[in-house]
Amino acid sequence: MRSPHPLRNGETPSPHHRIPDPHAHFHSTVALRKIRRFNLLILVLRLATFCFSLASFVFMLTNSSGSGSPHWYDFDAFRFSLAANAIVALYSLFEMGASVWEISMGVTLFPEIVQVWFDFGHDQVFAYLLLSTGSAGTELARTLNGTVTCTATNAFCVQSAIAIALGFAGFLFLGLSSLLSGFRVVCFIINGSRLHL
Amino acid sequence: MRSPHPLRNGETPSPHHRIPDPHAHFHSTVALRKIRRFNLLILVLRLATFCFSLASFVFMLTNSSGSGSPHWYDFDAFRFSLAANAIVALYSLFEMGASVWEISMGVTLFPEIVQVWFDFGHDQVFAYLLLSTGSAGTELARTLNGTVTCTATNAFCVQSAIAIALGFAGFLFLGLSSLLSGFRVVCFIINGSRLHL
Repeated sequence: MRSPHPLRNGETPSPHHRIPDPHAHFHSTVALRKIRRFNLLILVLRLATFCFSLASFVFMLTNSSGSGSPHWYDFDAFRFSLAANAIVALYSLFEMGASVWEISMGVTLFPEIVQVWFDFGHDQVFAYLLLSTGSAGTELARTLNGTVTCTATNAFCVQSAIAIALGFAGFLFLGLSSLLSGFRVVCFIINGSRLHL
Repeated sequence: MRSPHPLRNGETPSPHHRIPDPHAHFHSTVALRKIRRFNLLILVLRLATFCFSLASFVFMLTNSSGSGSPHWYDFDAFRFSLAANAIVALYSLFEMGASVWEISMGVTLFPEIVQVWFDFGHDQVFAYLLLSTGSAGTELARTLNGTVTCTATNAFCVQSAIAIALGFAGFLFLGLSSLLSGFRVVCFIINGSRLHL
């Protein structure tokens, strides 16, 4: 049974009441656009993290100029750096997939509470991991710089330094992602939905 | 003018309406107790950070067993570790003061918006700083372990390792503080008050 006076014009809809009228539809369109932009920003950060950590992994892996030259696996800190960058590249690839899924389908890959906590926890831990291996690698590269390893095969030391610098760039973008996913967690805790901005 | 039927018993007060009745007073007492507990938890974490980073600073500073033995200032990574732990100890001392002030006076030391962002930003940056210097120090200690420095004066290497481990413990508590202060920032953004839990 319809109301005789629908009151379409002149009413002031509260943004907190989701009543099915054109104003509410307009409001939800604006909110959806904001959410879409937020998700796109996360996707871009994931892509940047993936590119830099993959580049760091490849630079470190190919860091050997011959049979007489030293290898990355001769040094613990370089091994850690390679492993950490490989883990972060795989994780970023997975998260990019999850992000694309969320943007195209409108729902998260896992149940929402699992997804927001999974993203935030892994972002934090992997950001710390990447920074830690980067610092250890930097210190090793600095120590090597004065030794015979670097005077004999300078290319090895230069390429190690580049790989470590790329890892730091990956850390930067992963740290920014962790801020955004932390924001999503608290939105979820307070509003019961990651979508409320 | 008082209402003839005050309806003290049997009513169901909504927790979201701050009407001045005994139930609302009861509700705000519960909320205040929660906030007090939250602030005390932050204070305990600050205290733990302060103790561990001060201990790390002192262990590193006193790490020299004679004129012939090596000093902490001969090694860059140990110098960074000492400086980072000194900075974090001073910062934690200041934050403990601010926290005690907030618990006793009920207001923040700085304006609220400055305080929550100050706490969160510094917690994040100093946690990354402490982890980074800790990792670099660990790598240097590992490298030194096979050299003549450690075979000649083993006490120096052991004490360095202890100082670095204490720095990692400080990082752990600072990281936990940064999670709590991040929570306060988002509470402030969403509710306009750090006090809404």
